Amino acid sequence: MEHLRDDHSKRNIYIDNQPRLKAIEAYEEKLKQSKKQEEVSVYQSLGRITAQAVFANISSPHYHSAAMDGIAVLAEKTYGANERSPVILKESVDFCYINTGNPVADGYDAVIMIEDVIPEGEGLIKLLVPAHPWQHVRTVGEDIVKGEMIIPSGHKIRAIDIGALLSGGVVVINVLCPVKVGIIPTGNELTRDIETLEKGQIIDSNAWMFQGLVTEAGGLPTVYEPVEDNMKQLEEVICKAINENDFVIVNAGSSAGSKDYTVDIIRSLGEVIVHGIAMKPGKPTILGIIDNKGIIGIPGYPVSAYFSFRNFVEPFIRKLSGSPNDDEKTKAVLSKRIVSSLKHEELVRVTLGKVNGQLIATALNRGAGNTTSLVRADGVLTVPIHVEGIEAEENVEVQLLKPLEIIEKRAVFIGSHDIIIDILSDMMPISSSHVGSFGGLMAKRKGECHIAPIHLMDEATGDYNDAFVKKYFEDGTMSIISGVKRLQGIMVKKGNPKQIKGFADLSRDDVIFVNRQRGSGTRQLLDYELKKQKIDPKEVNGYDWEVNTHMGVAVAVDSNAVDVGLGIYAAADNMGLDFIPVGYEAYEFLVSNDDLNDDRIKKFLEIITSDIFKSSVLSLGGYQLDDIGTIRKIEK
Amino acid sequence: MEHLRDDHSKRNIYIDNQPRLKAIEAYEEKLKQSKKQEEVSVYQSLGRITAQAVFANISSPHYHSAAMDGIAVLAEKTYGANERSPVILKESVDFCYINTGNPVADGYDAVIMIEDVIPEGEGLIKLLVPAHPWQHVRTVGEDIVKGEMIIPSGHKIRAIDIGALLSGGVVVINVLCPVKVGIIPTGNELTRDIETLEKGQIIDSNAWMFQGLVTEAGGLPTVYEPVEDNMKQLEEVICKAINENDFVIVNAGSSAGSKDYTVDIIRSLGEVIVHGIAMKPGKPTILGIIDNKGIIGIPGYPVSAYFSFRNFVEPFIRKLSGSPNDDEKTKAVLSKRIVSSLKHEELVRVTLGKVNGQLIATALNRGAGNTTSLVRADGVLTVPIHVEGIEAEENVEVQLLKPLEIIEKRAVFIGSHDIIIDILSDMMPISSSHVGSFGGLMAKRKGECHIAPIHLMDEATGDYNDAFVKKYFEDGTMSIISGVKRLQGIMVKKGNPKQIKGFADLSRDDVIFVNRQRGSGTRQLLDYELKKQKIDPKEVNGYDWEVNTHMGVAVAVDSNAVDVGLGIYAAADNMGLDFIPVGYEAYEFLVSNDDLNDDRIKKFLEIITSDIFKSSVLSLGGYQLDDIGTIRKIEK
Repeated sequence: MEHLRDDHSKRNIYIDNQPRLKAIEAYEEKLKQSKKQEEVSVYQSLGRITAQAVFANISSPHYHSAAMDGIAVLAEKTYGANERSPVILKESVDFCYINTGNPVADGYDAVIMIEDVIPEGEGLIKLLVPAHPWQHVRTVGEDIVKGEMIIPSGHKIRAIDIGALLSGGVVVINVLCPVKVGIIPTGNELTRDIETLEKGQIIDSNAWMFQGLVTEAGGLPTVYEPVEDNMKQLEEVICKAINENDFVIVNAGSSAGSKDYTVDIIRSLGEVIVHGIAMKPGKPTILGIIDNKGIIGIPGYPVSAYFSFRNFVEPFIRKLSGSPNDDEKTKAVLSKRIVSSLKHEELVRVTLGKVNGQLIATALNRGAGNTTSLVRADGVLTVPIHVEGIEAEENVEVQLLKPLEIIEKRAVFIGSHDIIIDILSDMMPISSSHVGSFGGLMAKRKGECHIAPIHLMDEATGDYNDAFVKKYFEDGTMSIISGVKRLQGIMVKKGNPKQIKGFADLSRDDVIFVNRQRGSGTRQLLDYELKKQKIDPKEVNGYDWEVNTHMGVAVAVDSNAVDVGLGIYAAADNMGLDFIPVGYEAYEFLVSNDDLNDDRIKKFLEIITSDIFKSSVLSLGGYQLDDIGTIRKIEK
Repeated sequence: MEHLRDDHSKRNIYIDNQPRLKAIEAYEEKLKQSKKQEEVSVYQSLGRITAQAVFANISSPHYHSAAMDGIAVLAEKTYGANERSPVILKESVDFCYINTGNPVADGYDAVIMIEDVIPEGEGLIKLLVPAHPWQHVRTVGEDIVKGEMIIPSGHKIRAIDIGALLSGGVVVINVLCPVKVGIIPTGNELTRDIETLEKGQIIDSNAWMFQGLVTEAGGLPTVYEPVEDNMKQLEEVICKAINENDFVIVNAGSSAGSKDYTVDIIRSLGEVIVHGIAMKPGKPTILGIIDNKGIIGIPGYPVSAYFSFRNFVEPFIRKLSGSPNDDEKTKAVLSKRIVSSLKHEELVRVTLGKVNGQLIATALNRGAGNTTSLVRADGVLTVPIHVEGIEAEENVEVQLLKPLEIIEKRAVFIGSHDIIIDILSDMMPISSSHVGSFGGLMAKRKGECHIAPIHLMDEATGDYNDAFVKKYFEDGTMSIISGVKRLQGIMVKKGNPKQIKGFADLSRDDVIFVNRQRGSGTRQLLDYELKKQKIDPKEVNGYDWEVNTHMGVAVAVDSNAVDVGLGIYAAADNMGLDFIPVGYEAYEFLVSNDDLNDDRIKKFLEIITSDIFKSSVLSLGGYQLDDIGTIRKIEK
C-alpha cells in the first residue's frame, strides 16, 4: 500500500475555476483552425453542408417544352378563330402533334390541348379558339435559370435540394469536410469485455457515447484502444491521435489526481489554455492545444463527460463542419426548488410534462454518475454562477433534449414507484417521477401531474388511499382508478442467512436494514408495523439509509450492502432474493375528474385493461389485477 | 405522326378524384404489412429504432466503489471520533487506502476522504470525525439496477443511450429493419447523362430526390435504371423490384395518357386501390398492391412527385421503420390571398418571415414543375377541398420544412429583384420575394417585411424612390438605405440579328418583346420610355408576356422565345447577350426607422458595406456602389 500512499502525496496541483463562457472565449482566441472542403457527387451529398453557394449550370427546362398533350402551332396562325369562323390547320405545315415534355420545335410558339383539337381528316384539324403565344409551353428557365443560385453556402443538403441540383445540371459540389475527432479512453480500470467483468473494472462506455455524440454533431469519430495509466503510453497515443485527427478527446484523467497525466502531457507537447471550469458537472475539464489542434481532457463520470463534450467539443465540431446546432429551447415552470452552489454554474437535467396547458420542469437526480438520468432527461436547465438556486414555480428556460411534440403527448405520472410503471412506459408515452405516495398527492394538488400513483394506508381502518384523497382535495373533484393489489414483504438474501422471520428481527444488532424515502407508502407500512411491534426506529440499523425504488432495495440486499429491506415481491424475485410476505396493498391511480376525458387518461385506461398489459404484469408475480381500470369517484 | 395520333385516341381511361384521407384509409385497410426486426451491436446502433424495450443485464456500478480518494473503513469503528478523542486506525487491519472507482472490499462499508485522514506514521492514521455507513461509496445499482428498463421500444437510439446501454451490460439489441423501397424511373425522355443533354431529354432527378426522401424517412432505397416506355420491360422491372423490396415507387406514367402503363400493369399483377387523388399537386397518383407489397405510381412533375411521396409513401415507411415524423407545425398569418379549386385539396408552398413579432406566410409559385420553389419553401399550407381559397390576413397552420429557429433569424425582403440579393443571401440569412418595387412598397406598408428593395422613378423629376415613400408613408417614419446604381438596358441576342437600336424598334412587326410584371420598376421604365417615344404598348408584340426576374428576361431572349427584353447588364452578361445601355437607376432599400437598430438590419448594413460583398457585386459588371449603405431619413 506504500505505493498508493505515495500517490496521494502528489495530489497538489492547482485546478482553476474559470467561468464557462470566459473559458470558451479564451480557447477560441488561441485555437484558430479553418474549415476544410472537398468535392462530392450530388448523388452522395444528402446531409452534407455546402462550402460555397451552388449555381445552375443549365436552365430547366433547357428547351421550350409542351406542358400539355396536344398540337404545337404558331399562335399567329390561330388568331381570329371562333365558332363561326374556325381556323383550319394542316399537319406538318401548320402544326405537329406533341406530348407533354416534348420539345416545341422552332417555328412554333404555342401548344393547344388535344381536347380543343377537332380532327377533320386528311391531316387537317379545326380550331374554334385562338392560341396566344407561349400558351401551354414551359419556356426555357421557367423553373431554373442558368447561372441562378440554387442553394447558398452553409446549407445542409436535403432530398429536395438533390432534385433541384440535378435539374440545374449540377453533378459535383463542394462541401465541408466533417471534423475528424480522435477519442482516447484512459484508465487501468477500463474494459470492453462485458462478459467477464470483474470488481474494479469499469465498462468503457464513454468512448462510444463520444463516438455517437461526434457523429450527431456532424464530425467523424475514431475511437482508440483504451490506454493504461502510464504517462509514456498516453503520450504516444496522444501524439498519434493529434497526427491523425483535427481534434482529440482524452477521457478521463483530466483532474488533478496522482494518475491524472493528461494536463502534464498537453503542457509538455503544447499549451494548456484552461484547466478547471466553474461548471457542474464537468468541472475538471482541460482545454489544450497541440500543433494548432484542439485537445480536450474530459472527466470520467458519464454525466460530467457528456456536459463537458456538449459545451467544449461540440461547438468546435459544429463550427468547422458547418453543422448548425438545432437544439431547441422552451419556457417551463419549475416544480420543485433547486439549490445550487454560488461557486459554479450548474447544469441540471430535468423532465418536462405538459399538465393543464403548462409545461412543468422537474429536476432529475443530479449525480454525475447517473447515466439513466441523462437518458431520461427531456432537457437541461442552467443555474448561473453566483445564483443560490431557483425557487419552485419560477419560470425557467430549458434546452430541449427531446422533441417538444413528443414531450407534450405524454401522460405525466408523479408519485409512488412500481415496476408496472416501467411496463406501462413501454406501451404508451409517459413521463414518471418517483417521489413516493405523499409526494404524488402534493404534486397532484399543485396540478403538476395527470396521474399520481399512490398506496397510502389509513392506520385507523387499514384501508388504502380514499381517506387521504378526502383529506387533501376538494370534495367531488377526484377519482381513483383501481390499479393492482401487490404483495409487499421482507426481502432477504437467498437462503436467509441471518434467519430473519419478521419485523421483530429488524432491531437485532447483527441485522442491517435499508429504508425507503420519507413519504413513500412502503416506509409508511414499515413505520406502522414497527409501531405495532413496539420497536423504536432508532433500534433499526440503517433506518436512515434511504433508496427511492423497490429495485433499489432489492439490489442493496443482493449486493451485501444490507441484510434486509421492505418492498414488493416482483423486485425481490427479479433479483433472486428470498421473500417473507407481509400482505397485499392497493397501488392505485389518483386523477382529477376533469381529466377523465383527456386522451392521455383514456389511452391509459385502454392499456391497463388490455390483455397484453395484464399478462405482462401477472408474469412478474406478486400482483392481483381483479378490478384494474375501475374508476371510483371520491366523495364524502 | 400517325403513331402519335393513334396514341391520343387511347386516352380514355377514367381517373378518380378520391379525397386524400379517404384514399389513405382505403389503402391502409388493404395493405397489411408488419414490422421486421434484426439484432444489431449497440456500438453500431446510433439512430436505429428499438423493436423491444431494453433491460439492464447488470447493475451499474456492479460493485460497491469508492466515490472519493481516501481510505475504506468499517463505519462502526469510527463512531465517537472527535477533536478531543480521535480514533486511531491501523492500515490493513482497520482500513485500506482506496482511489475513486476502486472496489470497497468486504468488511468495509464507508470511505473517508484523504483530506480528513491524519497520518500518524507506522501504518497508523488518526480521525477526528466519525464516518456513517456507505458514505462516499457508490453502492451497487446506484445508477442502473439489473433488470431495470433502460430504454423503451420504438425509441431512436441517441449517443447518450449507447453510453447507458453499455453501462447496463447490453451489447446487442433488437431494432426495427428499415423498409426497403425500390425506385423505378420510367420514360423514354429520361437521361442521367447531363453532359450530353439534348432537346427532349429530361434529367432523371426525381429518382435521386426519392432516394434522399426514403433515407430521410428511415427507409433503405434502391434506385433502378430508367425504364423506357415499354409495357413488357416495365412489367419485368416491377416484378423484380417487388421481389427485392418491401415497397415500390414507379415514376412517372401514373396518369391516364397513352404511355401510362403503370396502372394496367398493377391491375394485371395485383390490385389498384385508388387511381387519382383530389389533391393538387399530385392528383394522378396510383395506390396499388402486388404480392401484399405496396406499389405507388407517382406523377412526373417534381413538385407533384414530392407531395405524392410525402403523403402516401413516407407515412408507410415511417410506420414500418418506427421512425417518427418530426415535422413541426406553426401558426402564421397569410400575406396574400390564395385562390384554390373547390374540387381539390391544395398543398401550397410558402415562405415564412418573422416581422414585428408575427410570422407571415407568403405563397410561392404553385407550378408543379417548379423545383426551386420547393427548395425555397419554408413550409406547406393546406387549402382543404371544398374551400375556394384563403383570404389575406387569415390565420393559417403551416407544416414546416425548415427549422423555425432559422426562419425567425432571417431578414425578410419583399420587393424588386436584383442579382445582388442572391449574393446577399449567401452571406446572411434572408428570405426574399420578388413582387416588384410597388409590391415591396405595399408589403412594407402592411408590415410584412423588414426591407423593401425598390427602384421607382418619379416621372416628373427623374429622381428615384423618395417621392413614392413620401406619398405612401407617414412623414418621418421611414429611411432609405442607399444600394446600387445599376445599368438598365435593352437585351438582344448575341450579334443583334434583328438590328435593334432602341425603344423605337419595339413596335416593329418582326420584333417580339418579353415584359416584366406589373408593379416592377423595370416595367415602369419601359412605360416611361414608350410614352416618351409616343409608342402605344399595343404596338409592342409580347407586351403582355410577363416574367418576374431579370434572369427570366435574359433567358427568354437567349432561348429564342423572344427577340428583346429590358433588364440589367449583369443578367445580360451572365447569359452572353448583347446589351444596349439605357441608363443607371437607383436600386435602394426601404426600411422603417424603428427597425434601424434591429440586429438583422445592422447585419445587413455590415454586409453591404463589406469589401467582400462590394467586390462580388462589382465583378458582375454594370453596378456603381459609391454610397452603398448610407442611410437617409425620408422627411418632407
